[in-house]
Amino acid sequence: MDLKQCIRDVPDFPKQGILFKDITTLLKDRQALKEAIDRMCAPYRDMEIDQIVGIESRGFIFGTAMAMALNAGFVPIRKPGKLPAETEREEYALEYGTDAIEIHRDAIKPGDRVLIVDDLLATGGTASAAVKLIKKLGGRVTGACFLVELIFLNGRQKLGNVPVHVVMGFEGE
Amino acid sequence: MDLKQCIRDVPDFPKQGILFKDITTLLKDRQALKEAIDRMCAPYRDMEIDQIVGIESRGFIFGTAMAMALNAGFVPIRKPGKLPAETEREEYALEYGTDAIEIHRDAIKPGDRVLIVDDLLATGGTASAAVKLIKKLGGRVTGACFLVELIFLNGRQKLGNVPVHVVMGFEGE
Repeated sequence: MDLKQCIRDVPDFPKQGILFKDITTLLKDRQALKEAIDRMCAPYRDMEIDQIVGIESRGFIFGTAMAMALNAGFVPIRKPGKLPAETEREEYALEYGTDAIEIHRDAIKPGDRVLIVDDLLATGGTASAAVKLIKKLGGRVTGACFLVELIFLNGRQKLGNVPVHVVMGFEGE
Repeated sequence: MDLKQCIRDVPDFPKQGILFKDITTLLKDRQALKEAIDRMCAPYRDMEIDQIVGIESRGFIFGTAMAMALNAGFVPIRKPGKLPAETEREEYALEYGTDAIEIHRDAIKPGDRVLIVDDLLATGGTASAAVKLIKKLGGRVTGACFLVELIFLNGRQKLGNVPVHVVMGFEGE
């Protein structure tokens, strides 16, 4: 099954000149969704992952389904102010300015084997902030998994020695 | 397994006087997570659901895991401006003012059997807007499923004749 055929290109979203990879056409196709999640999980079947960390909000779409498949728990990383208990926060650079993400302090136990999940690896800013948050809590980042990679943005560089697994990579237009 | 024991009460979040039901303590516990999703899915095993509609963003946490368990597709309902292609929009009342949610116009086929999923049934405003969106697209709303219901807020009333299934109900304090 060619999952790339299930993704829709939307020009000029969210702004002029960006060709947006819309995954909702894949998600609504039950066969494609199942295959996507199977392929995201494939490298981790025997790795005894303790926690899947999903990044708000499209990372949530894949994280819990993968947690069920890999017999792990699920931990959300969210935008500031959304998590109710005590959090750690990490800022990261945007094209202009900065943004931040947060994780609950008690979400990860020291030594936990943690897998980071999101829909898209673009510049890698959010994912590398997620790596820092997990390490702050003493977790071991076993890998980072994405449905789609925009290869031309070199996001992997920001993830250092964290093993990256993607289902589909796109070169620049 | 008493799933209520896995939920944490956080006082005064998101504002003074609100006792917030924090589900992240349940999500990170792999046994509790599995049991929660099994119990959310239980009434729908033989109902041939076509699409699970998850409401941003905590509905995403359960929606895809349920889609995998029930052999359905997944459709996100999102806050305005987040979905890239053509959308339908529905406004709903808040305590002060209004908010809105959107769905892609091509997300649901006429006649599709659709299940709405979210973490929490509170006043029912968002869920009833979701029902309207699905009906606009010609979908049949087979049910609405929530992990937690705040019974004292009477959200079910807003859902009319849509069958509601919840795993845990809480009375007022």
